Amino acid sequence: MSFHVYDTTLRDGAQQEGMNLSVADKLAIAPYLDELGVGFIEGGWPGAVPKDTDFFARAARELTLKNAVLAAFGATRKVGTRAEDDPQVFALLHSGAPVVTLVAKSDIRHVERALRTTAEENLAMITDTVRFLVSEGRRVVVDAEHFFDGYRFDPAYSRSAVEAALAAGAEVVALCDTNGGMLPHWVSDIVTEIRDAVGDGPVLGMHAHNDTGCAVANTLAAVDAGCSHVQGTVNGYGERTGNADLVTVVANLELKGGRSLLAGEGLGDASRIAHAISEITNISPYARQPYVGASAFAHKAGLHASAIKVDPDLYQHIDPTLVGNDMRMLVSDMAGRASIELKGKELGFDLSGQAEVLTRITSRVKEAEANGYTYDAADASFELLLVEEMVGERPRYFDVESWRTIVERTGHRGVVATAEATVKLNAGGERHVSTGEGNGPVNALDQALRLALTRVYPQIETFELIDFKVRILDQEHGTDAITRVLIETTDGQRSWSTVGVGPNLLEASWEALTDSAIYGLVHAGVEPR
Amino acid sequence: MSFHVYDTTLRDGAQQEGMNLSVADKLAIAPYLDELGVGFIEGGWPGAVPKDTDFFARAARELTLKNAVLAAFGATRKVGTRAEDDPQVFALLHSGAPVVTLVAKSDIRHVERALRTTAEENLAMITDTVRFLVSEGRRVVVDAEHFFDGYRFDPAYSRSAVEAALAAGAEVVALCDTNGGMLPHWVSDIVTEIRDAVGDGPVLGMHAHNDTGCAVANTLAAVDAGCSHVQGTVNGYGERTGNADLVTVVANLELKGGRSLLAGEGLGDASRIAHAISEITNISPYARQPYVGASAFAHKAGLHASAIKVDPDLYQHIDPTLVGNDMRMLVSDMAGRASIELKGKELGFDLSGQAEVLTRITSRVKEAEANGYTYDAADASFELLLVEEMVGERPRYFDVESWRTIVERTGHRGVVATAEATVKLNAGGERHVSTGEGNGPVNALDQALRLALTRVYPQIETFELIDFKVRILDQEHGTDAITRVLIETTDGQRSWSTVGVGPNLLEASWEALTDSAIYGLVHAGVEPR
Repeated sequence: MSFHVYDTTLRDGAQQEGMNLSVADKLAIAPYLDELGVGFIEGGWPGAVPKDTDFFARAARELTLKNAVLAAFGATRKVGTRAEDDPQVFALLHSGAPVVTLVAKSDIRHVERALRTTAEENLAMITDTVRFLVSEGRRVVVDAEHFFDGYRFDPAYSRSAVEAALAAGAEVVALCDTNGGMLPHWVSDIVTEIRDAVGDGPVLGMHAHNDTGCAVANTLAAVDAGCSHVQGTVNGYGERTGNADLVTVVANLELKGGRSLLAGEGLGDASRIAHAISEITNISPYARQPYVGASAFAHKAGLHASAIKVDPDLYQHIDPTLVGNDMRMLVSDMAGRASIELKGKELGFDLSGQAEVLTRITSRVKEAEANGYTYDAADASFELLLVEEMVGERPRYFDVESWRTIVERTGHRGVVATAEATVKLNAGGERHVSTGEGNGPVNALDQALRLALTRVYPQIETFELIDFKVRILDQEHGTDAITRVLIETTDGQRSWSTVGVGPNLLEASWEALTDSAIYGLVHAGVEPR
Repeated sequence: MSFHVYDTTLRDGAQQEGMNLSVADKLAIAPYLDELGVGFIEGGWPGAVPKDTDFFARAARELTLKNAVLAAFGATRKVGTRAEDDPQVFALLHSGAPVVTLVAKSDIRHVERALRTTAEENLAMITDTVRFLVSEGRRVVVDAEHFFDGYRFDPAYSRSAVEAALAAGAEVVALCDTNGGMLPHWVSDIVTEIRDAVGDGPVLGMHAHNDTGCAVANTLAAVDAGCSHVQGTVNGYGERTGNADLVTVVANLELKGGRSLLAGEGLGDASRIAHAISEITNISPYARQPYVGASAFAHKAGLHASAIKVDPDLYQHIDPTLVGNDMRMLVSDMAGRASIELKGKELGFDLSGQAEVLTRITSRVKEAEANGYTYDAADASFELLLVEEMVGERPRYFDVESWRTIVERTGHRGVVATAEATVKLNAGGERHVSTGEGNGPVNALDQALRLALTRVYPQIETFELIDFKVRILDQEHGTDAITRVLIETTDGQRSWSTVGVGPNLLEASWEALTDSAIYGLVHAGVEPR
């Protein structure tokens, strides 16, 4: 029996607080899911959510999927109607998706108190709707909603819902821990009982939420007890605490369970894919996410740094390249000289014989981190610090005389504020005074700096700011607090990150902007003039 | 046998990327851990880390713990020395902590390749160090490092390390999944075997990391198999993917397993405690964190919103007040009129009969969210929107004529930039022109606004900005992108959050600042003048 990896990022994942996916977002995410190698992509609820109707219409024309098929999510027919007359069921049929996933009530309390119908009518709704869709040539998955809670309350009724779905021709019944309250041993016991009841033939699936912190483990427990269909979302997106993180589930089953679940080699690109999707959802990636998180293979402990150099396998649960991630050594005041030496090596600087320089760098880093800098996420600034300590100063491409920003709004809401910045600096033996305009003060400063430098260093025109992050470091003091700005710049080939810190947001931004220009010019092979 | 809840937030948790705890931070966190009701607080490694030595010295004078005892973490004696001559062991003794936790190698590969000594010498190091500390009156916990990986490679050796520790008088041996690669069924099997080997008497513990997304489940599996000591950290802090989240572990065991583990009633304050600690660590709280996360009991689905009104228990795995959290309805464009009605009710506005207003509000919210606003985290701005739609306009405490900020730096790095803002507005029938100075432009704007309003509305002097968050919404465009600013203000009694959005950071900040002033004045019972 082949194993189903069923992704619901676009439907259940999109229920997450703060997430709001457009049709274009969904169309951009689906190819990444396909590249990952999932078998099913649940796209939304056509008929109930207008943009999901659009999604399926556009997907049919615009998406070419290599590995996955699309699934349309919807509900069983309404109480007291016929499936073939229910417009919602009709919309599922007309979405064009080859798979239809029906949410069906399987907890008698929800049948009686939320649906307000009888036990029998609910079973008939399942039977009729599944039968109708199957007769129309659809593959049908039934999501047995609130299944585990229902089973713990009234096992016979929950089992009868599963049996009704299978008898009507459902290809899969996914057992849902809708409220996320299960623990692994409960899942294990219940799935075993259902497996015994329905026999070996039918495909059972697991749909877990993370309210007990056990979504992944509950999914693994269900697989051990006989489920061969796992549902989840990329980055564990979802309502409340999220759904089971599909990459973590699959990585555990493939890398530790020896199974082969994904089509193709997608797992090896999982980190890139997970991050690309987080760019589209615009939900900041969670650094501590298993397997694909930025910190997942990052080592800080000074204690271990020297041993890790010798024997990385002793300190990692898997080879990070298997999920497209990397081991990273963090430069941090908890880390000793060994980590800084290792980090230098990563950047191409051999500090092994230079004890004095290493000591100086280590104490510079400690001092800077005490003031709020972080080099964990700003390799370019760290490299400039390294160069400064090794050579004595950073490359002097320019000398700044002054800068100023003015942001002004005259009039009420609705009138747009203007932002301008003036930069005065010396470069190439001349004084340059430039004024930039922008949507905001940082943008204006960036423009003014480029304008001032572009005559002497035309290469700077290829640089583009692609990310700008602001972190308030001491939240107790509100706007009085220290601000840390991280900037990411690209030259079209590669990107680099710089950091600036200070009580003044614009001064911190200026520091990161100038560091970025210097680093970019160094790596473009340009000499200071 | 009493159960141990052992917190290592201050030691292993502090290994997290981006975390940097000062002695003052640790002294501020410890009372929260004690209030939560843990039995043990591991404070750090005295002797090896100078600030940890200070922590124990100051803790002895300054901390009064009600429930917990302090544990000092350290290593077994060095190869080829005597425990009583090892300065690192001596420092543990002299920390004054009643409990000493020794990290001991229990994976033969680490003994040979990292420690570079023999199997026998490592066992002797464990025996000698434990025996010495016990003879000096300390309670000793042994953390068997890399235990599970070691056991899977060479069970006999790993078992012998555990047995050596127990024979020498260790009160607890904690089995560590140091690299975090375990799955629950492996943990279950291995702990069962060790429990069989050592008999029922000794206390075994579990120390899990989350690299497979199973730290919580692995800890539960270990408890099921006979561990009665669980280690973890608040908010799951820790290196790489973090340690087991102690609140989640305890909540699962207490609320679902029927055990009583914490001293006192701390679990009922877990959400407040977890958030207070995240203020001190300055690591943004993770909204999707089980039990205590801001989203953990937040409902967005329009589908369920009306049913939740009737029967909240059908949609929550526990009563959120058991962990000091709350159910929240999210105002979102995915939500329908039912959620907005419910949210209005939460804020004290009865919209039940007002279909037209409800429709207007719903479409305003949808439009605003499409432009980047979010009301999930800005109740005060949502309330002003509600009032505006119900009454026709927001309360007019003032009319803004113009504002301007100038930020300027003359000279090189080291010279501090200056920020000033001028606000011109009408209030109380007069025109007010005020200039504020600040560390940065937002601070200067805030000062100028207050100065301009304070003569007419002296109540504004009690308001204080306590949080300022900046989010870049479209990261693809760097500084060109849309900025969302969230501001939190307090009047000393309660706090409220407002939102501003726009391409210009300062304009967005201004929107949030003025909303905050208006909301604060409304709730102070002040009439517009």
